[in-house]
Formats: sequence, structure tokens, C-alpha cells
Amino acid sequence: MGLPFVTQAQITEVAMGKVKVQVNLNGQGQLFYSMLFGGKPVIKQSLLGLKVKGNDTLFNKLFEIIGTDVTETDTTWKPVWGEVSTIRDHHKQLTLRLRQKDAGRHLLNITFRVFNDGVGFRYEIPQQPNIDYFIVEKELTEFSMTGNHQTFWIPGDYDSNEYSYTRSAISKIDNKPVVETTGGLVVQTVEDRYSVQTPLMMKSADGLYINIHEAALVNYPAMQLHVNTRNLVFSAALVPDAVGNMAYLQAPFKTPWRTLIVSDHAEDILSSKLILNLNEPSKPNDVTWIKPMKFIGIWWEMQIKKSTWSFANSAREKNVDGNLVASGKHGANTANAKHYIDFAAKHHIEGLLIEGWNTGWEDWFGNWKENVFDFVTPYPDFDIKAVTSYAASKGVKLIMHNETSGSATNYERKLDTAFKFMNKMGYGAIKTGYVGRIIPRGEHHDGQWMINHYQRVTDKAMEKHVALDVHEMVRPTGLHRTYPNLMASEAGRGTESNAFSNGNSPDHETILPFTRLIGGPMDYTPGIFKLNNLGSDSSKRVRTTLCKQLALYVTMYSPLQMVADLPENYKKYPDAFQFIKDVPVDWDDTKVLEAEPGEYVSIVRNEKGSSDWYLGAITNEKPRTLNIPLSFLKKGRKYQVTIFADASNAHYLSNPELYTISNRMLGSNQKLVIKLAPGGGCAVKFKLLPL
Amino acid sequence: MGLPFVTQAQITEVAMGKVKVQVNLNGQGQLFYSMLFGGKPVIKQSLLGLKVKGNDTLFNKLFEIIGTDVTETDTTWKPVWGEVSTIRDHHKQLTLRLRQKDAGRHLLNITFRVFNDGVGFRYEIPQQPNIDYFIVEKELTEFSMTGNHQTFWIPGDYDSNEYSYTRSAISKIDNKPVVETTGGLVVQTVEDRYSVQTPLMMKSADGLYINIHEAALVNYPAMQLHVNTRNLVFSAALVPDAVGNMAYLQAPFKTPWRTLIVSDHAEDILSSKLILNLNEPSKPNDVTWIKPMKFIGIWWEMQIKKSTWSFANSAREKNVDGNLVASGKHGANTANAKHYIDFAAKHHIEGLLIEGWNTGWEDWFGNWKENVFDFVTPYPDFDIKAVTSYAASKGVKLIMHNETSGSATNYERKLDTAFKFMNKMGYGAIKTGYVGRIIPRGEHHDGQWMINHYQRVTDKAMEKHVALDVHEMVRPTGLHRTYPNLMASEAGRGTESNAFSNGNSPDHETILPFTRLIGGPMDYTPGIFKLNNLGSDSSKRVRTTLCKQLALYVTMYSPLQMVADLPENYKKYPDAFQFIKDVPVDWDDTKVLEAEPGEYVSIVRNEKGSSDWYLGAITNEKPRTLNIPLSFLKKGRKYQVTIFADASNAHYLSNPELYTISNRMLGSNQKLVIKLAPGGGCAVKFKLLPL
Repeated sequence: MGLPFVTQAQITEVAMGKVKVQVNLNGQGQLFYSMLFGGKPVIKQSLLGLKVKGNDTLFNKLFEIIGTDVTETDTTWKPVWGEVSTIRDHHKQLTLRLRQKDAGRHLLNITFRVFNDGVGFRYEIPQQPNIDYFIVEKELTEFSMTGNHQTFWIPGDYDSNEYSYTRSAISKIDNKPVVETTGGLVVQTVEDRYSVQTPLMMKSADGLYINIHEAALVNYPAMQLHVNTRNLVFSAALVPDAVGNMAYLQAPFKTPWRTLIVSDHAEDILSSKLILNLNEPSKPNDVTWIKPMKFIGIWWEMQIKKSTWSFANSAREKNVDGNLVASGKHGANTANAKHYIDFAAKHHIEGLLIEGWNTGWEDWFGNWKENVFDFVTPYPDFDIKAVTSYAASKGVKLIMHNETSGSATNYERKLDTAFKFMNKMGYGAIKTGYVGRIIPRGEHHDGQWMINHYQRVTDKAMEKHVALDVHEMVRPTGLHRTYPNLMASEAGRGTESNAFSNGNSPDHETILPFTRLIGGPMDYTPGIFKLNNLGSDSSKRVRTTLCKQLALYVTMYSPLQMVADLPENYKKYPDAFQFIKDVPVDWDDTKVLEAEPGEYVSIVRNEKGSSDWYLGAITNEKPRTLNIPLSFLKKGRKYQVTIFADASNAHYLSNPELYTISNRMLGSNQKLVIKLAPGGGCAVKFKLLPL
Repeated sequence: MGLPFVTQAQITEVAMGKVKVQVNLNGQGQLFYSMLFGGKPVIKQSLLGLKVKGNDTLFNKLFEIIGTDVTETDTTWKPVWGEVSTIRDHHKQLTLRLRQKDAGRHLLNITFRVFNDGVGFRYEIPQQPNIDYFIVEKELTEFSMTGNHQTFWIPGDYDSNEYSYTRSAISKIDNKPVVETTGGLVVQTVEDRYSVQTPLMMKSADGLYINIHEAALVNYPAMQLHVNTRNLVFSAALVPDAVGNMAYLQAPFKTPWRTLIVSDHAEDILSSKLILNLNEPSKPNDVTWIKPMKFIGIWWEMQIKKSTWSFANSAREKNVDGNLVASGKHGANTANAKHYIDFAAKHHIEGLLIEGWNTGWEDWFGNWKENVFDFVTPYPDFDIKAVTSYAASKGVKLIMHNETSGSATNYERKLDTAFKFMNKMGYGAIKTGYVGRIIPRGEHHDGQWMINHYQRVTDKAMEKHVALDVHEMVRPTGLHRTYPNLMASEAGRGTESNAFSNGNSPDHETILPFTRLIGGPMDYTPGIFKLNNLGSDSSKRVRTTLCKQLALYVTMYSPLQMVADLPENYKKYPDAFQFIKDVPVDWDDTKVLEAEPGEYVSIVRNEKGSSDWYLGAITNEKPRTLNIPLSFLKKGRKYQVTIFADASNAHYLSNPELYTISNRMLGSNQKLVIKLAPGGGCAVKFKLLPL
């Protein structure tokens, strides 16, 4: 389908449904694109190209189009786990084959994939005679917005995504006050006060929802966005390496996809499978071992300072034999682990995360120290063999923790040993962590070197049949399609923030699905039942109702879903806990009923291999009434509907733990009306009744 | 022996033989030292201290002396291998216990060890309540010289020692022209035109020889010296890391020793064991497996472009099956390896180095690429099992090559695999290499991170019973006492420079023993017999006579000594080759007969466990006559003396290969007179005759 030659005046375009992309060259041979939705401009003419170190023109001007290829694809595929059992991938692909009118006659392809709900495009550097290795100094990609949209943003920090979202017009973006007032972050590296992180969510005055992110981030730094607050143009801002370069590449190479998801319905943004579709299928590994699960953890008790990760108060507290002196506050001790195992077994929670089981925590972060953890040596009060065999005898899977304190070099040189140990002990899942400044020093959590590090760990875990839950990682870009063992990550401001900082506001969980979760599942750690006076600190609370905590199991999808609170707190509310015990982590179908970023999210999901549905609905600080038709249920059938609702006097600041549980029998032609408290939510289970 | 309190006016001093060190505090509580030799000042009052990041006073002023300890030690010890079989360590040690009059009451000890031939001192940060982790921003140590001495220096390059030496007055030091005109270096990082590398050799107008270096460089960056050309003060210039810091430390910590070797006889500088004595004894590992040896190599043929390290001309030259297409020029092929093995076996050369045996060389350096080599995959034309078993059957030990292309991260993550492979194949020695810019990017060959990397590789090699010959490493600091498997390193401008750059001048080998070799053995790769028209390039030559090449086996000590030229070139001169075959690599005794940096070096050594002696004498571009009494021979005994001397018409530029071999019978009361050609040398074997 290649065309012979395209004159510079010609506009090349490709459309799918309401989405249209147009590409054109200017007189200097610079390439631009624009995007429309239903005839309305979404992205005005915006520059494309790369700046290569040591060459002012390479891959950015003097282009001529030597060919265009257009193909259409309509296929379906089945994820190993996820929100739906089948995903349709219907897109048109336009590849522009460009050649530069420079001495090297350099070749660059740009491929656009246009879907009903948006577009992805990437740069492809073919193998060619006059270029082999090159260093990207800057990516020139721009997103020129058509208006001063409302934007949900966090700062463009090279090392952290753990910020609360700010809602502002594009022209008002300024991350400085946010960076300066956000507490509790171990590393903050924000070099540009006008930079924001992706996924970036916007809403136009005329009701268009626009999300900018990227897909398939491999061997390239993360893309953040620098905003020009005057002309409303976002430009790609790649995360630099230790010497200020962006990416070390060798032809042939394909960059990650730059993605735009667009709709006039906010719900479509949450339903979009565009980013997953732009990722590669999983490799033909044996992936049957990968199983979603819920898990409890020896974790929240450390967050709320009931116990500690460390065994001793300080690395210097040693006895005459040179051994650490126990502080008596160590969480991951044998007895406590068995206590958690008993609880998990009793309530059929599949997994138990154990943090602080291994030596090193007396001295773990803040010092840019390279060799802290060895990933194999348990503390003396943690009888790892006894705990492991006890868990096995009770059918509880242990998720072991590999905290790196940001020292990726140390983890890499011990990776073989650590994973051999995991395999030998029979552990099928690891939570990794990167708290602290990265080593190699000067590298960042979101730079190319660390992107490749996460990939190496993922590859090793796949080889060893270990599932991963990665904390302090770069935000996801749909790579869990290709690597289904990369089940969840943090890369955002989770529940833990409530325990050690000013916490999360009630709108936080209504924004996350439009931003952080666009790239993939988040280990948000829902399920807190004791919502205030955290760790006996009256200033620390979780700003939701208890019912909203239940709803999060539906609204925040993750195949690894934590049951985050302490067993003792669940024991106080056994009826509400029943929802957490029941709610699945793998689904055949998902419907976003109602959603508006910063306001509310209502999602209903169909349990995998079952006819049962689960609904979660949340609101921000405003009370709302959920009023939804049950048309997703099977026609002509009745369901036993168990409704977990905020009590009438519940409020996220007062009486957050008050709820009601009611049972009704309903069918698809009926409606459900439920009141949500300020900062509240509801959770509903629909159990199909036999005929 | 602690003294109660020392007033600030008090001068503390310690002396051994002619060497005296004095220490004093000024009114600001800054600490200074000075050094004398035979009553003459060598180092004028010079500052001591460290600058810690984020603190202007810590470890550099407001000191008070809270105690001094003086001890004297006189012991002997036996190195595993070396120039002598027994080393005497006779020194006085002065430890100044300092406390700062700051809020933290910080403690710092400075220890001086004074020997007959110089002094070493170091900073010791004791464990103490008010400091744990800290970052060194600058080391304040100064060396204030008493005159504008003649200096033999190379630039203070963070990534290379492979420079020719410049001879200049201190006031004339300026490395810029040297840096700009030195060709053939893959990486050069010189940020200060007034910085020089150590070991730095100086000679004063009144005949004092002074060498500044360091001993026991562990977990700290290398110390280079910044010179103030006006006041003749050298100050420590540590090699920075990727973000501009010098060292990440945790108390307790001891810095490397700063060393000053001083004598009024140049020969004493070469005989000094001060640096070895300042290093720790070897750990109680089993070190009996560590054996000095000579080795040939599939190496020089690549240097002179007769063959290549790579298998294909380019990584892109692949056939339809995706396999590299052989260029036909690959050196490390099975047949060639067997040819070398036959030669080594025939001539009783113990080892064979094979470079280019493993995949990756098509693309190995210059691109800052992280994953080049895997260290285990042989090229298709190298039947590694066949070559290995053939070598074993002939009694030849293979030295396998692990080139990292500077990508230390890649090597570290494959280190276990690489060493398991070495063990499995039965290889007892590895030559490692670091050609190229370091990864982690921004780190330097001589910075703290890489110092720790070399240490990790050395530790792994010790654990796996593998001897190391490390190229492109930081220059040595006597650590081979502690780690005798760290047998040799390059870290200097070796013979190879003649093959690909403007080469080495005839004085080069007369300077190296006073500079590079002060820290430890150098894999200089002597033994070139075809001295000009290297690789059929008439501009490339080795600027020595053939006899000087023989002499280097004695003057340049290394327990791993290469027999560097091609077998075919040795076959042309079998009588001269006999000296290389005979000369040992391990000695009971060594006497430096005559030496002057930049001029000449004559050394005679006694073979370990034998009564035979070997002499090597070299000169610079000037002809000389060696005239030495043979008093080192056993009294009353006769020796058969085989003299390899330059022919009367030999010259390093014309007829370099002309030599004479004569035999005489001589005793200890006789003299030996031998003429050395310009750029020439002589080698002599003294074989004890039976009574």
C-alpha cells in the first residue's frame, strides 16, 4: 500500500470512528500532527521529532515522505488476568516513511495507530547505513491544546509519583508550591516547575475528556510533560540520566507509544484498552502459574508505628558478641507471622506479605548507601523455615519483600541469589521496593537505566515464575500485557500516605483511575477499617468512610489486591469484612457506570467464570446518591443483592466507620438507589439466584 | 602511651632514621604537618583535614588534641610472591587523637607511620555518637614543597593513566598540551589542567628524591594532585562521582594512606617497601594456589592488526540465518590457539592469554553501550572445549579474557556466571579490561564506585581461586599484599601504545619504576623482538633495542610477565629468546644497582629458591656503559655469566635488533662492564657453578 511520493503540501490523514489524525510537513521539512474528535480539534498542529546529541538536524527536520502505509486491524485477544476476559483491538495504522534531505539520507518512520477512543504514535528508527548508535538529547514531541482545559496533575518528578493531584487550568500549572508542601517523600527531583507527570487527565470546557500518556515504555526514559502556560503546548520532557542524556539507542529502535485517549464521556476513558492494545502480546512463556490474589500483610502495623521493620533500634545497638539487640518492636517475628497466617487461612485470603523479615532495616535509607540488604538473611526472631512450612500447611502463599533502598546495583548483583532463594523456599511472589535515591548515583527512578533495571527484574521473575508487586517504580504503561507477572505496582500516592504525611483527600481515589491507573494496576492497599487516630496519632486518618474502602476493591482494579488493615480491626466488623473476603480479583467483564474525575466513580464487574457481579461506587467530599439501572444483569433473572452502604450519619471526618448492610432481590429491569456519604462509597454484591 | 592534653603551641613529632614528621595546630584549630629528611625540610607546613558535605567545619578545624599514642614496630613478613622473599616493616606510629570544639564534639584520629624511607598518614574517623554516614566533598591534604623540583608527571585523568611522562619543574606543570596531543586514548577526563596523577616522582635541586602516592586504596576515590604552580603546593584532588561527590562513608572508617617516600639515593625509591608495609596482610585464605608465571598471548597480533578480536567485520554482517559472517581475520580461532599452545609447551611458557574468544567484539566500545559481552559465549570458530583440553594435555594454563568495555554494571550482574564458567573450564587466571567510558554513566575508572567494583571482582576471584590481571584499572596502591591474586594490572602506558599511537619514548621504561610501579606490578608486556614496521606500518615502532626488551623482564617486576611478541618473531632469535625462557618471575632478593628517573635503571635479582641471579639494565636515548661490581654474588664462588648485550652498532632507531651473546666465568670480586646502545639495555644471567 506504499504510495510513491507525497508532496510537502499534502496532508496525510487517517481516521477511525470519531478520531482523526492529520500529518503534514512544513517548508523546513519539519513534521507536524494534529488530532480531531468528532470534527473538533483536540490537538492542534504539533511538532514531531527527536533531537540527537551532536547533530542539529538528525530526526527532526529536512524530512520528505517517501512512502505511507495504511493498514486496518480488527482482532481480539485474551489477557491472562484483568478487568475483562476479551479485548478487542480495532485500529487503523498509518506509517509515514520519512527520509531526510541531509548528507546521511537518514530514515525515520512514524507510526500512528488510530482507535475509536484515541491514538498512539511512535518513532521507529530503521536499521540503515548511516546511523547505528545515537544518544537522544531531547524528544521534540508536542501536544498543542485547543483550550485552557481543566487539568488533573502531579509534578513531573524524576523520582516519585507519590503526590496528591492538583486540579487547575493548564495556564495555572506550577508545581513549585506542590513540591514544597508535599511531605513524606524520601526523594524529590523536580527540575522544572512547569513539568507534570503522565497520565495527564484533562477536561475541555466543551466536555471533551483527554488523557495523555505513553504505552510500552521499554529501554527509554519516562515521558513527562513540560507545559508552556502561555500557548498551552505540552512538550515531551524525558527523564535524564546521570550525565544529562536521555536515551542511549541503537538502530533499529522503536520508541514507546505516545498516547491520547479522547472521549466526550468520562467513562470511556476508564474503559479504554488503547494502552494495552499498543503493548506487545505476552511472550509464549508458560503463564498459567500467574494467579491473581488478595493478600494481607505484616505491613500496615509498621506504617502506623505499632511495630517496626527493623529488629533493633539502631545498627549500633549490638551486644558483646556483635549481634543486634532486639528492640522488642519487630513486626516480622515468627509468632506474629503465624498469627497472620492463621487469620489469612481462616478467612481464605490467599496471600501474606511479610516486610521486615530480612536484615538491614536498621540502616536502610537516607544515606545513599549501596550495600544494605542481601535479600536472603532473616532476622534472628524470624524462623523463616518454620514460618514458610506453617504457611504451606495452611495453604497461605507468602509474598516476600525485597526492599532495595534504591540501590539497584546492589539488587542486580544479588538478583540471582535472591531469586534462587525465592524458588528454593517456594515463594511465588515478591514485593520489591525502591525507597531512596537511586544507585547508580545520579540516575533516577524514571530514567532509561532504571526502566531497563525494572525490565531485568521482570525478566528474571518471569524466568523463575515469580509474580511482582513493585513499589517506587516508574508508573506503568501497559507492560503487564507483555509481562503478566508484573501484576501490580505502586507508582502513585497510596493508602500509606495517610499514615505518615498529610494524607489523601477524599477526591484522590476518584482521580487515580483517570491518571495513575490508566497505565496499569496499582497496589493501592485498600481495606482500612480503623480510619482515624492511626497509630494513636489523632492527626493521622484515612479520609474515607469504611464503605468507600470496600468500594475501592471494585473501583481500583488490581490482580494483587491488598487486605491492608490489621486482623484485629477486621474482627470488629465481620459482616463488612465479608465483602472483602468475597470480592474477586479477576473479572470477565467490567462496566463503568458513571465517572467524573475528581468527583465520583461507579464501576460494576462480573466475576471471572461466574454470573455474579460486584459494584463499587465512590464519591469525593460531596454526598451523592447513586441511581443506576441494573441493565448489566442477566435479563429475566433474579439476583440476591447485598448492599454495603454508608450509614445515614456517616461522614469521612465523623463516624466514617458507620455502615448498613441490607439484602434485596433484584433483576435487570430494576434500579438501585444508594446514598453515599461525604467521602463515602458503597459496595454491592449481585449473586445470581438459581431458576 | 596516651598523653593527657597537649597545648596548641606544642609541636608533636616522630622520627625514624633520617625521617621526621612534625604536627601542629594553629589558632583556628587547623592541623598541619611537615616532614624532614636528614634535617632538611621535604614538606613544609601543610594542611590536613577533610571537608564534609553540608558542614563547613567538620573534620577540618576547631581541633584540639586529646591524646597522642606512639608505638614502634619492627617485624618481618613474607609475601606470597614478589621481588624479595622477606620484607621488614620497621616504623614508628604516631596517632593524634583529635576532638573538635564544635557542638558535636566530633572525633578524628590522624595516624602517621614513619619509616626510614618515608612516611604514610591517614585519617581515621572513629565510631562516635554524633556522626554516622557522611559524604566527603573534598580532602584538604596538602603537600607543600620546599623548591621548584624536577617532576615526572602524567595528567590527573579520572579515566586513564596511559600517558607518556613529562619532565618539568613543578611551576611548569600544565597538562593541557599533553592531554590534547596524546592519541589513542578511548576516554580522557581531565577537568583541571593543573592536576597530575600519583605516584608523582620528584627530584630536588639538592639531590633529594621524593615520591608522593597512596597505599591501600579501599572504598575511597583515587587521590590525584592539584598543583599550585606559584607556591608549589600540591593538594589532594579526589576523583569525583557522577554527581560530583567524592566518597560516601560511614564511621568507623580509615582513609587510604597518603605516602611520601624520600631518599637522597634514587635507588632507595625503587627498593622501598613502604607502600606494601602500609597495606594489610593477606587474609587467611588459602593462597598456595597463586603462582607467578610467564605467558604468551593471542594479543599482539591484534595490536599490530595482523588479526582481529572480532569474528565479523561488523555486527551487521549477518547471513540469512542471522549469524555473523566470518571476516577470516579472527585471531582467537581454534587452529591459531592450538598453534600458540604448541609454542608455549615447546618453550615452557606456562600460560597463554586468549583475547577475542567470546562474542561481542564487533561492537565493543565507543558507544557507551551497557550490554556488550556475556563472558561465556565463544565465537563459532573457537572450539573452547577442544582448545581447553588441548591446552591441559600440553600443560599450558589458559588465561581467559573478560573485557567489559567499561560496563561495570553488566560485568557485575554476570560475575557469578562468568566465574562459574571459569571454574568449570578450569581456568585459573583472568585478564579483565575496562576500555571505554564507565557504566554507571558519569562514574570514572578511578572513582569510589569503581574502586569498590575492582574490589568486588578481586574478592570474587579470591573466592573462586582465580588470579587477575586487570587492564584500564586504577593504578595500584600495594593491595596485592592483601590480595595476592590481584597479580598485575595495567594502569599505565604499556608496550601496546607503540602499536596504535605515537608510542613510547626511550626514557619511558626508566620512569615507570619510579612512578607507576611504586604501587605494584605492571603488565607492561615486554618481549617484542620485531621492533619496527609494526603491522607493516612504517610509522609504528618500539623505541628500544631487542636487548632492552630482555632487560625489561628484570627491571619491570611482575609476577605475571608477558612474552608479548608473536611466536614467529621469537623463532628468528632463538638464542636471545633463551633469556626470556629462563628469566624467573618470582625472586628471593632484589638489588637496585643504579637508577635515575628518566635516565637509567639497573637491577639484579636472585631467583627464588636458587643461587642464580639475573640482571637487567636499561638506558634512555643516551648510550651508557654499565660498570658494576658483582659483590651481590656469593663470595668465593664462580658463576657462568651469560651476557645479552646490544651490538656495537645497535640503536633503538636503527638496527635495534642487533645483539651479542657472550659467556664468561666471573666471581663476586669482579666487575662487569657492558655497553648499552642508545635506547638500549642488557640482560645477564649469573648461574652458580658447582664447587
